[in-house]
Parts: sequence; structure tokens; C-alpha cells
Amino acid sequence: MQLVSKSNILIVGLGLMGGSYAKALHRVGFHVNAIAHKQEDIDYALEQGFIDQGAAFPDPELIGSAELIVFALYPHVFKQWIEENQKYFQPGALLTDVTGVKRCVVYDIQEMLRPDVEFIAAHPMAGREVCGVRNADDRIFREANYIVVPTEKNTPEAIEVCKSLGRVMGFQRITELTPEMHDEMIAFTSQLTHCIAISLMTCNDADHIGSFTGDSFRDLTRIARINEDMWTELFLDNIDALIHEMDLFAAEFGRLRWMLASRDIEGIKNTMRKSTQRRIALDQGK
Amino acid sequence: MQLVSKSNILIVGLGLMGGSYAKALHRVGFHVNAIAHKQEDIDYALEQGFIDQGAAFPDPELIGSAELIVFALYPHVFKQWIEENQKYFQPGALLTDVTGVKRCVVYDIQEMLRPDVEFIAAHPMAGREVCGVRNADDRIFREANYIVVPTEKNTPEAIEVCKSLGRVMGFQRITELTPEMHDEMIAFTSQLTHCIAISLMTCNDADHIGSFTGDSFRDLTRIARINEDMWTELFLDNIDALIHEMDLFAAEFGRLRWMLASRDIEGIKNTMRKSTQRRIALDQGK
Repeated sequence: MQLVSKSNILIVGLGLMGGSYAKALHRVGFHVNAIAHKQEDIDYALEQGFIDQGAAFPDPELIGSAELIVFALYPHVFKQWIEENQKYFQPGALLTDVTGVKRCVVYDIQEMLRPDVEFIAAHPMAGREVCGVRNADDRIFREANYIVVPTEKNTPEAIEVCKSLGRVMGFQRITELTPEMHDEMIAFTSQLTHCIAISLMTCNDADHIGSFTGDSFRDLTRIARINEDMWTELFLDNIDALIHEMDLFAAEFGRLRWMLASRDIEGIKNTMRKSTQRRIALDQGK
Repeated sequence: MQLVSKSNILIVGLGLMGGSYAKALHRVGFHVNAIAHKQEDIDYALEQGFIDQGAAFPDPELIGSAELIVFALYPHVFKQWIEENQKYFQPGALLTDVTGVKRCVVYDIQEMLRPDVEFIAAHPMAGREVCGVRNADDRIFREANYIVVPTEKNTPEAIEVCKSLGRVMGFQRITELTPEMHDEMIAFTSQLTHCIAISLMTCNDADHIGSFTGDSFRDLTRIARINEDMWTELFLDNIDALIHEMDLFAAEFGRLRWMLASRDIEGIKNTMRKSTQRRIALDQGK
């Protein structure tokens, strides 16, 4: 398929991310339909005018009319949905997703998929601390990264359409990683950070900390407000990579503790200089 | 002293925090002088018009004319400065500070001080990832906490003036803690968070992470850009409390790792629910 303004796009799963995709894609002129679990979410999106049609069940007509389908589901629901409903896909349909882990979905889905449709995985690295379609907001894409995650089974055309999709939704930077590289990178930059935020928020029972915090504590715990069902599944689906990153962090944190306890001033300052240089490089987009 | 609009205030130390104090206090109409280490910092503040007079040495005249003196110095420099220059203070002068650790300065300074002046400690919980007077900005106080840290030696009048100072500079919330409580709280909400950010930034040598991060990694590492001289001193001056908090965090992080590795789904979700509840309470100002 080619991504043109009249393309018929179906969003499956109308939560925060599915809703934000629908808003972004509707805004730029696509015909956007949605399938959700709850009728009230469909009704809300119709009222707000960011989908054209919707159903609270796997409507064969909506599925069959879609040239591009975006899956915004939990990993285990995603696979099951494909299994049950792929018979309704139109030949040549392109499928993509927003799933935060890739190894555990990409290969299985490409394996089980009908040969006349193609699945190209993507990970929009954006989110909010609240969930549900009522919190959908496509402005979260503006300064965000969008990672396309192809395998050997993907065609150059599908990869290109997937990148175009990221571009039209307003993502700042679009890159490509293998499923393995993606999961390793995400274990470090996203999953580890969530584990740290959770542990910081739960490690000390001090009361009334709101009166005694600076911005730093608020920044480090913003993501400690977390959807426990989704993140537990994402963590466990990437557990080997996550545990590896947790161990790297714990070792480095332990090293800093040791330098502090032994008053190794040069060691402490060298570590701080390294961290400062790396953070400046990150701000410069490196 | 009473804090009235004609009060003569001296800032000693014209870095990010001293400069931000000068801007805030000058804006509301005080006569603000400054003593700094470098003449160029004084010249900059005079040119920008947020101090009235300044000197790059401990000018007896500027010191003697001040009713209120704010010390914005590193802890070890602070004590030495008092020792050498307290002979110039006017009788009845009130001293305060911005130091991020309290036990190690408050008692020593109150002990060595002339009996006809009073030192009331305070900690403005605001900052930036850049330093120096050229980055001074009193808007950082707007949503920030300001902690007054009295001891038994302080008078109710001095405590009240110190709180007024926080109010006129625009701090959102003004509270009171003992030096011991302050240092324990700060070890958790500020020093531990900086140690975590540094370790996250230095634990993994992955390149080009800028293309694969979401907001979470940026939020958690913003403070990894750190002034190594100041923070090493602040950490080591509060090392017992900091190590205690680091150990609490490491234990909690290890507990989460264990639950993940053993797929203890209920344990993981309970921890996430606790962290979510606490983060919501923090947003509600608790």
C-alpha cells in the first residue's frame, strides 16, 4: 500500500496510544476507523470527531475495508486478536503496532500471519502517566522518537510506509532497529528507568515529602505513577534484557556508594564529570 | 531586624543561587549589595542592575552596612569567611544561608559567632543544571519549597524574618525542620536522586541513545549534569544520612529485581500500585 490522504486506517485498541494515533491521523486527513473493547470509548471518539466509524467488536466490515491497521493492544491480546480475526483482512493490507517490546511479538506474528498481508513493527516512544482514550493527545509525539523494527521478512516498501506514518504523525526522529537491538535499548532507556522510579517512590516511608522536595525528586518519580497491568507484562516479556540492565545499574550505583563511603573524592568527581559529559551529549541529540 | 523595603541586604557569594537571590530581592525593592570571588561577576550584576554595590573582596564597609547577610557559599568556605570577617558585622545583624546540608554548618557557625549577631539557616530547594551568576534566575523559586532550619539558639523573631525572606522571594511553600530532620530528608529527596541519576547516566556505554529515549530517561538524568565540586562536598558533609538512603533504595531495587526474576506478578503489581498511590499523593501536595 501507499500512504495517501484517502487511505483507510483502522486502529485496534483505543487507549491512550490508540486514541493519540487516531487524533494525529484524523487531523492530517486520513479516514480513521477504530475497534475497541468498550462501546463508551468508541462513542467518545465519535463524539470528539477523531474517528469516522467504530465498533466494540471485531467488525468484519471495518477490518476488511482497512488498508493499514495499527494495533495498540497488550502483547498477549495482540497475538490472540490476529489469530482470531486475520481471516477478515483485505489482501495486501499492512499491519503495524505500538507495542513496547518486540522480540516476543514480531516473530510470532509474522510467523502466524497470512502470506498476503505484511506486519511491520514500530515503537512510538511517547506516553503519559495517565491512560485511556480520554487522555489521548497527539502532541506527545512532537518531540518524541519513533523506532521502526523490521525483520528479514519485511519489504522495503512496508518499512517506508511505516516511516511515513511516523512522519505524518509529527514524530521528531525516526530510526530503525532490529527486534533484538530494540529490546536491549528499551530495557535500558525505558524499562530500567521505570524500575528505578518505582523503587525510589517505595523505598522510604517518610511522610509529607511534598514539602521537602525539589524538582529532582518530582522528575525522577513522574513515571512512578504506572499502569501495573501493562508494565508488568512489558517487563516480563523482556525479562532477560531488563535484568541485565538492572544489574548494570545496581553495580554502578554500588560503585558510587563505595566511593562515597571511602571518601574517594577523585573517583566521585570523575564519575560526575562522565555523567555530565554524557548528559550534555544527550541534550545535543547524540 | 525587621524586613522592610529599605533593608540593606548583602549577598556573599554570587553564583547561581546568590545571583537568583539578588534578582528576587532587588526586584521587590531592597537595597542589595554583593561580595563575590570574581570582579567580573560583580561587574555583570551591576551592569544588569540587580545589585546596587559590590566588591570582589570582603569590603568592611559593605559588610558593616548590612542588616541582613545571605551566605551562598560552599560549606567549608562559609565557615572560614565568618571566622575571618565577623569583626565587620554591625551589631544586631541577621545572617542566613542557602547551604544544602545543615548539621555540619549550623552548629559550628552558631558556636563561633559573635553574641550580638544571629545566624538562622535556610535551604531554598531550587536549582538549575547550570551554574554561575549569568544563569541566575529567580523564577526558579516560584513553585519551590523553602525550608527554615532553626536551632534552640534562634529567636522567634529571626525565624519569622527568615520565613518572610522566603515569602518575598516567591517560594510556594515555607516549612521548618531541625538540622537533623533536614539532613535526613535532603539525603532522600535530593542527594539520593542525584546519585541515582549519575549512576543511570554512567552504567551503560550504549551510543546514540538520544535516538531511542522517551521522556522518562531524559527526566531521570536531567540532574546527571552536575557541578562535581559542590555536590561532592554536599554528599560527603552528609555521608551517614546519604549512605543510609542509598542502602534503603538499593534494597528496594533489589527486591523488585527479585520479584521480576521470579515472576512474582502479584508482588510486582502491588509495588506498582504503592508507587502510583504515593506519586498521586505527591502531586496533591502531600
